[in-house]
Amino acid sequence: MSENTVKSILAQNACDFSASGNEDIDHLVEQRLATLGPTSVLFYREPLEMVRGEGTWLYDSAGKQYLDAYNNVAVLGHSHPAVAQAVAEQLTKINTHSRYLDRNSHHYAEQLLATLPVDNARLLFTCTGSEANDLAIRLAQLATGKQGIVVSEAAYHGNTALVNQVSPSSCKRLPDWLATFSLDGLRDENITLEEAKAYIRSEIGNAVAKLQQKGFGCAALLADSIFSSDGVFASPTGFLMMAVEEIRAEGGLFIADEVQPGFGRTGDELWGFMRHSTAEQVLVPDVVTFGKPMGNGYPVAGLVASNDLLQQFADQDGYFNTFAGSHAAIAAAQAVFDAIQSEQLQQNSQQTGTFLKAGLNDLKTDFSQIKSVRGAGLFIGIDIVNEESGLPDGTFTSEIINALRQHQVLIGAAGKDGSTLKIRPPLCFKQEHAEHFLAVFKQVLQQNKSHH
Amino acid sequence: MSENTVKSILAQNACDFSASGNEDIDHLVEQRLATLGPTSVLFYREPLEMVRGEGTWLYDSAGKQYLDAYNNVAVLGHSHPAVAQAVAEQLTKINTHSRYLDRNSHHYAEQLLATLPVDNARLLFTCTGSEANDLAIRLAQLATGKQGIVVSEAAYHGNTALVNQVSPSSCKRLPDWLATFSLDGLRDENITLEEAKAYIRSEIGNAVAKLQQKGFGCAALLADSIFSSDGVFASPTGFLMMAVEEIRAEGGLFIADEVQPGFGRTGDELWGFMRHSTAEQVLVPDVVTFGKPMGNGYPVAGLVASNDLLQQFADQDGYFNTFAGSHAAIAAAQAVFDAIQSEQLQQNSQQTGTFLKAGLNDLKTDFSQIKSVRGAGLFIGIDIVNEESGLPDGTFTSEIINALRQHQVLIGAAGKDGSTLKIRPPLCFKQEHAEHFLAVFKQVLQQNKSHH
Repeated sequence: MSENTVKSILAQNACDFSASGNEDIDHLVEQRLATLGPTSVLFYREPLEMVRGEGTWLYDSAGKQYLDAYNNVAVLGHSHPAVAQAVAEQLTKINTHSRYLDRNSHHYAEQLLATLPVDNARLLFTCTGSEANDLAIRLAQLATGKQGIVVSEAAYHGNTALVNQVSPSSCKRLPDWLATFSLDGLRDENITLEEAKAYIRSEIGNAVAKLQQKGFGCAALLADSIFSSDGVFASPTGFLMMAVEEIRAEGGLFIADEVQPGFGRTGDELWGFMRHSTAEQVLVPDVVTFGKPMGNGYPVAGLVASNDLLQQFADQDGYFNTFAGSHAAIAAAQAVFDAIQSEQLQQNSQQTGTFLKAGLNDLKTDFSQIKSVRGAGLFIGIDIVNEESGLPDGTFTSEIINALRQHQVLIGAAGKDGSTLKIRPPLCFKQEHAEHFLAVFKQVLQQNKSHH
Repeated sequence: MSENTVKSILAQNACDFSASGNEDIDHLVEQRLATLGPTSVLFYREPLEMVRGEGTWLYDSAGKQYLDAYNNVAVLGHSHPAVAQAVAEQLTKINTHSRYLDRNSHHYAEQLLATLPVDNARLLFTCTGSEANDLAIRLAQLATGKQGIVVSEAAYHGNTALVNQVSPSSCKRLPDWLATFSLDGLRDENITLEEAKAYIRSEIGNAVAKLQQKGFGCAALLADSIFSSDGVFASPTGFLMMAVEEIRAEGGLFIADEVQPGFGRTGDELWGFMRHSTAEQVLVPDVVTFGKPMGNGYPVAGLVASNDLLQQFADQDGYFNTFAGSHAAIAAAQAVFDAIQSEQLQQNSQQTGTFLKAGLNDLKTDFSQIKSVRGAGLFIGIDIVNEESGLPDGTFTSEIINALRQHQVLIGAAGKDGSTLKIRPPLCFKQEHAEHFLAVFKQVLQQNKSHH
């Protein structure tokens, strides 16, 4: 095990369990620690008790309204009526395991598979994105006969024993069979595609070389194509293609983790990795994994891979997940899939994201705390720096997040040092919400300066 | 990796994907293979398409009614109105992650913790039993500094990369740090407690010795206290205490996997491991894990451990599971907890289980195919043998299961050679259902003889 020097992203923006000054909330925090224990970390210096959600708004127990610019799982918006109704109806009929036939699951899988460029593909259901990534790594290691995995240096891919080990943002002791690459060279959005390709080729090449030297070989590149926990690296589109070419040249597979960028979030395409296809070449992953946005919060997840890859796994190992793709999970997933289309959420993500990014770039010219703005669709990262030193400032970033929370706007942090603001609202976030966000953000930037 | 000789339980009672003779079903099976692929194994030679469930009955797409004596996840019964209503209401309010306060989760945890003998205990939510067992193993390995795990020889503990490796019933290449013990010595229900204790002490002692010899040490005994996939070993109560004593003498922890025996199933107690407490000594696990019966099918799961154990893990690793213990998960879990009490399901499990077991023992005197009947509450295993040889007969067991399915009664198989019938209905299974089961089972035994 090598030491991991990346600061835990999970600890950023966390409540430190000291008194918040709000008696009711402090009492609840005490109750929480006494029942759910020390791993149940809360957001914000003054934690929130949310009791209602609608669209892109959340409401706390005091009746205060919060603009949600953070929660990606409720991809359609909170308490979406179509999902609530579909699940409610299904639960009165049947909700059992997938060892009986369920034509709705075939119907859903057909539609999902039609959106992906993978040949002869099949959809395997799991309950969580962690389970999907866990299985994807096993598929890749089995297919290649190698153990080595390549991920970005602040990646987060889930919480099982295996995927925790490929998540530098949360795992404190990374295994020797993991190699990481940086995205720092893509921090400036003005970089050309050729420069970006040369950079990523070198990064991936170095990572793979380490694995080869240690004798692990290269099983897969596992990448969230929006690089959410690294701080959002969306462009120039095409750079990911180069990373995949490098991996394949070494015999490894490409696993596209769509838990974050999938289901229309990046605006340009339904799936994040598809943004990196070029006029000459379509980017085709070997495995695509999905997480809970798939059911707007109902636990349904899964992976897509070729029949050959799955057959090899079925022959060698087999897979059994009682409640993966249960009737209610399918009902939720179908409602989400339909609403993304009928409510044109991908288009909205593209339009509102463009509007929001333009507004943020305007603020950048006025506020030296903003170093750069990156993103695609409704997934935007803002690098925050100390105004005097110009250096990344995770502490100041956390102050901004907590100040926004006091102004009833919810966002989060990302990046290996926690100095990137992460904006990732439900996809029903409209121009009016973006305007509200920009106004409050401006106010917070005016009121909060770094202290160094 | 050592070879595992235990035949895959998952393949028992599986559809072989050859034509069933039912055109509509064969068409659906083709569609399924074309969309969900080769890992999506179905039950029964002629698979079933279930479209409705109520109480302990399931209904297929042709309108036929099936007595469900198999499905444990719908612990209250299928489509239980209290769960459907609680989830439906919650989904119209809010269903987001656990990084905001939710007093309902504290309330639920308090009630659950009050039923368990673990001191200073906390409840950590996951989405699946697999995730809970995955984390439990990590807790044990961290706390002991050892890697070795002891499980029963046909155990099933889940589907992540880690827990698959501690599941001899599904994993084909078991790791060196796993040692197994047999329960064969407990097959005859007339064994005395002293004999059983001597047997299990020797079995566990041998398993631990292997781990110590190989240098892995002993981190934990991970056991489903009803030994469901081994073929149901419920008595004499107290034998598990000896197993735990042996493990603790070697420095290992005891993880009680309650995914199968928990929530009143074994009748005598709410939790399976509690049946093994004696007048002199209370059996106290270090970790207790729970699976999807916790939400009657809504994906909610978790583990209970002491605050100290969780604090050690929080300091070292931390844990993050976005949708574990989300609002809808808590709503489902609370409805299940309440209904188990208000509908006296544990008592029903005890009473109906006793009635059913007596009826099965009566059949045993008439049918030489039945070698022994074991179980507690509504979890019963029946060893099936060839009438002529008196030897375990997995093929014949599968024939009985498929014959019962043709008679519209659903059960499954267990045991390392698949020769144990597994009866594990929803806990609303009443005497009238048991009578129906016994009548059909008798008819099937009369019509089906082993062919050897």
